[in-house]
Amino acid sequence: MPAATTTYAARLAGLRQQVASLGAGAAVLTPGPDLEYLLGVSVTSHERLSCLVVPVDAEPFLLVPELERLGWADLPAGLVPVASWLDGDDPYARVADGLPSAGQLLAVGDHMPAVHALRLRAATGIEVTLAGPALAALRVRKTGQEIAALAIAGAAIDRVQERIGEWLRPGRTEHEVAADIADAIVEEGHQRPDFVIVGSGPNGASPHHEASDRIVQPGDVVVIDIGGPHSGTEPGGPPAANLAGYFSDCTRTYQMAGSADSEFAAVYEVVRRAQQAGVDAVRPGVAAEDVDAAARAVIEAAGYGAYFITRTGHGIGLEVHEDPYLVAGNTAPLEPGMTFSVEPGIYLPGRFGVRIEDIVAVTDIGSLRLNNCPRDLIMV
Amino acid sequence: MPAATTTYAARLAGLRQQVASLGAGAAVLTPGPDLEYLLGVSVTSHERLSCLVVPVDAEPFLLVPELERLGWADLPAGLVPVASWLDGDDPYARVADGLPSAGQLLAVGDHMPAVHALRLRAATGIEVTLAGPALAALRVRKTGQEIAALAIAGAAIDRVQERIGEWLRPGRTEHEVAADIADAIVEEGHQRPDFVIVGSGPNGASPHHEASDRIVQPGDVVVIDIGGPHSGTEPGGPPAANLAGYFSDCTRTYQMAGSADSEFAAVYEVVRRAQQAGVDAVRPGVAAEDVDAAARAVIEAAGYGAYFITRTGHGIGLEVHEDPYLVAGNTAPLEPGMTFSVEPGIYLPGRFGVRIEDIVAVTDIGSLRLNNCPRDLIMV
Repeated sequence: MPAATTTYAARLAGLRQQVASLGAGAAVLTPGPDLEYLLGVSVTSHERLSCLVVPVDAEPFLLVPELERLGWADLPAGLVPVASWLDGDDPYARVADGLPSAGQLLAVGDHMPAVHALRLRAATGIEVTLAGPALAALRVRKTGQEIAALAIAGAAIDRVQERIGEWLRPGRTEHEVAADIADAIVEEGHQRPDFVIVGSGPNGASPHHEASDRIVQPGDVVVIDIGGPHSGTEPGGPPAANLAGYFSDCTRTYQMAGSADSEFAAVYEVVRRAQQAGVDAVRPGVAAEDVDAAARAVIEAAGYGAYFITRTGHGIGLEVHEDPYLVAGNTAPLEPGMTFSVEPGIYLPGRFGVRIEDIVAVTDIGSLRLNNCPRDLIMV
Repeated sequence: MPAATTTYAARLAGLRQQVASLGAGAAVLTPGPDLEYLLGVSVTSHERLSCLVVPVDAEPFLLVPELERLGWADLPAGLVPVASWLDGDDPYARVADGLPSAGQLLAVGDHMPAVHALRLRAATGIEVTLAGPALAALRVRKTGQEIAALAIAGAAIDRVQERIGEWLRPGRTEHEVAADIADAIVEEGHQRPDFVIVGSGPNGASPHHEASDRIVQPGDVVVIDIGGPHSGTEPGGPPAANLAGYFSDCTRTYQMAGSADSEFAAVYEVVRRAQQAGVDAVRPGVAAEDVDAAARAVIEAAGYGAYFITRTGHGIGLEVHEDPYLVAGNTAPLEPGMTFSVEPGIYLPGRFGVRIEDIVAVTDIGSLRLNNCPRDLIMV
């Protein structure tokens, strides 16, 4: 069995155990990050059903539309058999036929469109539940290889942040700056830019603002939040298929030369200290919500609590947002191998926003930052 | 009430009736084409729940994450109130609180991720069903304005097909040709290219092949299947927001100068006649599957039935694939205002493929083609 096949076969075996522990007889998963994780390849369809079926008591198989079969040519050799269906066939009945016994529950992927989930329920006569917890149990703790992939992605996006001064200049629109950043994200080895937030002046006060035709002004505060899935290949290094698809995500806040808002320097320092406090709180056994609380306490003590309107962070891997979430109410303890963002911010409506974001990995004794570009205030 | 608001308010009222006829007490729909149709605007989220809630017995409302609220600024004035939730809140409970009474069924959008559908079921205690039939009942028959939007999109993609000779040349890779076509799709007023299939030689025998590094050779047969959502604005015309987002989708098959496969000319003529037979079969009252049968009969009579491995067509509108599907088993009668592709093909493995695709609209007495670039064999 080739090395790649062995890795994925072990993941599939792990999933079968997890699905059994949910009390389900099988998992059915449609294309997306779950299939990237389990098969190393995922080919998206339009409305036609493509799915991986993983029964607890039988061998897994992939079912795809016949006319998309060639797209799955990169499936690791010998990993799972591929069945196909033709237009006019009922693919839901094909899944039902492939299940060895009825079972009590069918676990469907969290991202599966409802149309597929409810038609599978109708065709199998089995109640559906979410496969998400089974997948998260496998995916939430990264292996050393996966952390290496995230570190390669993190270093690549750090290099883009360190070149921001080449593109971020007064007189240019946010869209123009974002287009140059998007090109650099690809030059640095990403498969594609996934998001390029350029939030200048008051636009920075909206955490999910992307980019607009606003012209950057002297003295502006500018939030730059960028990332995407990386190829896994370091500059000059050999390609490594198993490392592909892991995301980068890094935010820095810059000041344009000129007269800034008089409160900016103080706000920046509060966010910098809050982000450090969040990272310092990360170690095995700490509840996810306690990292949020540690960062939030710094901002609240400075009197800006009402302006920190998001959670502190989100897990990252083959998805840019995945478990674990650093949010009040998430009491799950951190474990070695978990990877997530720490990204507190202060958002002053109509004025400006400040956010600093690094990806960190939980280690046996604490944490490791996977972004290491400067966090000190940078004027461009 | 502004004109745009009136249009969308009427659609929402129509949906309430359709949801009631499903026996459901409310529909819950996440961002995507359904919201484009009902609200004229749709802002996608990552994992956070954004949804339109349409109770049968109360006023509809939109629930979005607070930090994405600004993204919904283009919502037509006065159409629906916008509620928001903060990280740490339970958005599913918020939906449950907003439903006037339990009801028997909650209709969820076909594209809603299973994680939202099953958490809504848990939070409301109401069984879920698919809202798809209620939406299709509204969306499947296009208004004159919607057909105008599809005609604008069709004329735009026709102009791209008519310029193929500028880019499709021996010695260039499929990827290079596709990149130029993608630029032209945007130049011709599309919001973005959605798919650019360049299937040269044996790659054309895979109906969903996209583009590769294969170099186009003299004598190659090349399938070009392209489209995307259009802005709705004709060159030099005024912007018309209500016409935005409707898809184009057109396929032509070209022959590169040189020595082609000896069977090609005959196969091309069979596909051309099959496509004409399919279009000729379109009129109100005919079953969708009968259009498939009419095109298929021509190909079968010529002895190529085993090589026509897809259905004959798919509906099109705010989605590139939607109801109605022209496929064996779909006995639903065609009605005036329906719009769909007619796209038979012959796919000879290892050799070449031929496909000809036009979008047609069902009229009171027959059909109207919305693609009108030449269907005769073109050598480039």
